[in-house]
Amino acid sequence: MDELGARTIGVIGGTGPQGRGLAYRWAACGLPIVIGSRDAARAGSVAAALNDRPGVSGVRGLANHDCAAACDLVVVAVPWEGHAATVEPLRDALAGKTVVDCVNPLGFDKQGPYSLTVPEGSAAAQAAVLLPESTVVAAFHHVSAVLLGDESVDKVDTDVLVLGDDRAAVDEVIALAGRIPGMRGVYGGRLRNAGQVEALTANLIAINRRYTAHAGIRITDL
Amino acid sequence: MDELGARTIGVIGGTGPQGRGLAYRWAACGLPIVIGSRDAARAGSVAAALNDRPGVSGVRGLANHDCAAACDLVVVAVPWEGHAATVEPLRDALAGKTVVDCVNPLGFDKQGPYSLTVPEGSAAAQAAVLLPESTVVAAFHHVSAVLLGDESVDKVDTDVLVLGDDRAAVDEVIALAGRIPGMRGVYGGRLRNAGQVEALTANLIAINRRYTAHAGIRITDL
Repeated sequence: MDELGARTIGVIGGTGPQGRGLAYRWAACGLPIVIGSRDAARAGSVAAALNDRPGVSGVRGLANHDCAAACDLVVVAVPWEGHAATVEPLRDALAGKTVVDCVNPLGFDKQGPYSLTVPEGSAAAQAAVLLPESTVVAAFHHVSAVLLGDESVDKVDTDVLVLGDDRAAVDEVIALAGRIPGMRGVYGGRLRNAGQVEALTANLIAINRRYTAHAGIRITDL
Repeated sequence: MDELGARTIGVIGGTGPQGRGLAYRWAACGLPIVIGSRDAARAGSVAAALNDRPGVSGVRGLANHDCAAACDLVVVAVPWEGHAATVEPLRDALAGKTVVDCVNPLGFDKQGPYSLTVPEGSAAAQAAVLLPESTVVAAFHHVSAVLLGDESVDKVDTDVLVLGDDRAAVDEVIALAGRIPGMRGVYGGRLRNAGQVEALTANLIAINRRYTAHAGIRITDL
């Protein structure tokens, strides 16, 4: 057993493509998963749809607050527009827990994607401000939701940069990335360096458009 | 012949480790190279040292302004602290030319590296403001100066993100990256998305320290 142990993983925003894709992959490798949504019924129907997939069972769906309370480690995968409003009411339910923020503050205009300025420096830093009793780690920013969700894709060939100031929590999230076939978690620096990792998603989207790809990144020489 | 043609490449800041390493690699594959420095004598001695390496000849060293005037494509590889002061006086000498900015605005404290806020959004955007008659492209931010300069390293195994708003200039710089064995240039988005690419160097330095590596990046699915 790795640093992750037998923890129950919650995915706030688990009904969106990124959250649903991550939930699918972790459930497929046997981790206990709870999908969170503003709407408990919608969380339940996404959980049921995942349980219908080959090799997946036991996924539950709950309202965000119940999801946060029921889980040991919680991934936040909501759109940036709803980030602060979603995270703030979960402060007590997430106290003492590891919170993995994978939100990318991006805008789009006719010239394509661009990174938004966040007063706290990054979405993850904003979560750390709003959740002072939690240990916030930033990760899973660059993983293609399309590849995650595609059952015909055996391996998601990418590295995941994992940023945080707490070594044990970072190692736990590196292990969480490593559970997904093809994926490798790599320590990516302190939380104060999360902004550029989130923003780099704009570059990957630009790459996807130019080359018609689902681009990810690998770190060389490791 | 690729998009690069037979252009003479200038490297402003070519006496520093990054500039010298790039100059070495391009000279070793036969491109005409001019090293630029504030001090023409120092540029000359770095050029002479490069010409002493096996497979390298014809590298010249000039004062920055003469280097800019003599070259068709100019790489800016100075420390961030000297960026604006170095670039601004070269406006006329660089007019009508492609300028490749590879400067990373970083700070360091006892917690390690972090990205600095640049009013223009990035070093490359600052260069674009200071050089309104030039075509600014951002590239070569993440290439290890140690690997570039090491004669025993045959291939520099990394992708180079190339950012810019002018397709022809971007393609020219992608070709310039491709001339170095092991290196691949990849379009990385418009110039307004250069800030996070520069800042990501802080993460790569954090990775180097944690894993004792010379980390670079590869873009997957291309």
